[in-house]
Amino acid sequence: MNTLEELEDFIENGYKTYIPHISIDCAIFGYHDHQLKLLISRLKGFDRFCLPGGYIKRTENLDDAATRIVEERTAITGLYLQQYKTFGGPERIKWNDPDTINLMKVHGYEKIRSSWLMDQTISIGYYAITDFSLVKPQPDLMTITCEWSDIDKVPDLLFDHNKMVKESLQALRLQLYYYPIAEKLLPKKFSLTEIHAIYETILGKTLDMRNFPKKLIFLGLINRLNEKRNIGPHRAPYLYSFNAKKYKKALEKGITLG
Amino acid sequence: MNTLEELEDFIENGYKTYIPHISIDCAIFGYHDHQLKLLISRLKGFDRFCLPGGYIKRTENLDDAATRIVEERTAITGLYLQQYKTFGGPERIKWNDPDTINLMKVHGYEKIRSSWLMDQTISIGYYAITDFSLVKPQPDLMTITCEWSDIDKVPDLLFDHNKMVKESLQALRLQLYYYPIAEKLLPKKFSLTEIHAIYETILGKTLDMRNFPKKLIFLGLINRLNEKRNIGPHRAPYLYSFNAKKYKKALEKGITLG
Repeated sequence: MNTLEELEDFIENGYKTYIPHISIDCAIFGYHDHQLKLLISRLKGFDRFCLPGGYIKRTENLDDAATRIVEERTAITGLYLQQYKTFGGPERIKWNDPDTINLMKVHGYEKIRSSWLMDQTISIGYYAITDFSLVKPQPDLMTITCEWSDIDKVPDLLFDHNKMVKESLQALRLQLYYYPIAEKLLPKKFSLTEIHAIYETILGKTLDMRNFPKKLIFLGLINRLNEKRNIGPHRAPYLYSFNAKKYKKALEKGITLG
Repeated sequence: MNTLEELEDFIENGYKTYIPHISIDCAIFGYHDHQLKLLISRLKGFDRFCLPGGYIKRTENLDDAATRIVEERTAITGLYLQQYKTFGGPERIKWNDPDTINLMKVHGYEKIRSSWLMDQTISIGYYAITDFSLVKPQPDLMTITCEWSDIDKVPDLLFDHNKMVKESLQALRLQLYYYPIAEKLLPKKFSLTEIHAIYETILGKTLDMRNFPKKLIFLGLINRLNEKRNIGPHRAPYLYSFNAKKYKKALEKGITLG
């Protein structure tokens, strides 16, 4: 099938393969060297950017659907996608939105107006974070472009996607303290300077260089190793590692303050 | 309309009022005096208990739907319901389950087999915690009974509801450290003994009485007041209050470790 046929089939028969009324939208953050970015994509027929998203197959569980959707839309594989919140309400998608009307005009799909796609949709939000210097997103047949945007330059997105960005960033920030998110962005053994930069960048604020590690150690999230990195005369900072066992336990039982 | 007519109308026409394929299920925890309980209910036609749940009206946002559903099923009002996770996958509801078949037999509803209710459903999980000594749950027309069960005596529930209980309890435990959940269970000014009992009971483990408050204060979650409670000669413990501003900020920006 070519793209047009595929799209027409999706509009007419998609509800047989996918569950109607519910979609997944993914906020994919990218970190590298003090910079935080967000992956945004633009679908064919739309003027505005959006988060990569799609529908759930009737045979899939939710996490697998999120992984497949990101792979299809952006060609990025191997992400650890974390569900953070589900978005609903009659106002979240406005089908009289100029972009949506434009989509229907551009493609000439009168059928889309009466299709399963036009009914109210609730969306499950997922997020992930990766090193953006290591992944090159590639658009799929439905997508014109997908690219990294600086986090403070994210444009006006489709639907309620700006709200999703805000809330996924909140979730990411909260989970920095009870889930080893930063683990994916660091070598196994890292210096305080390295983890400090990641925390400052993701949290979007200055963290006191002396108090910050004390508190991470106090919470039991990182361990100091009996090992230093030799980076020159008189400069050999201690190396640290994540306390994965503690994280796992914290995730199941709550942060142990006892 | 009587119950039977209402139910038949819901089966036949419910999809016009409610969004198909997506429901809400609520884990309502109750705390009082070192005890943790869970609200379970039994629907007409079902042998097993379940969590109070229902569908989302097309005019509602998700939080309002959760509040309405709990009010309808249990007559409990004024809860702060927190969304924690959405559950899906082809295996979560088994329509060939003996309970479901029983439901259809008991009510004699052949129509239910071909109705919108029999298609795959994804469910949004909410939880809340309240003082169980202050609320008396009341069943609605669809419900035979709703009652408090000891948390360690929760029976085998319908569908994937035992998984929901496990995951909602995990979420509640995690959120104890960045959201003022225990606030609803304590007077405005409380002693360390009081908050210690709540944390121990919800976390289901012993917390060192000397370290526990230090850590809560260290995280900035509670403040010691310049005030003592006089409970007898030589016994005047300091009073504490929640640092609501800190919680709010933490929720938006992450726990400030800087």
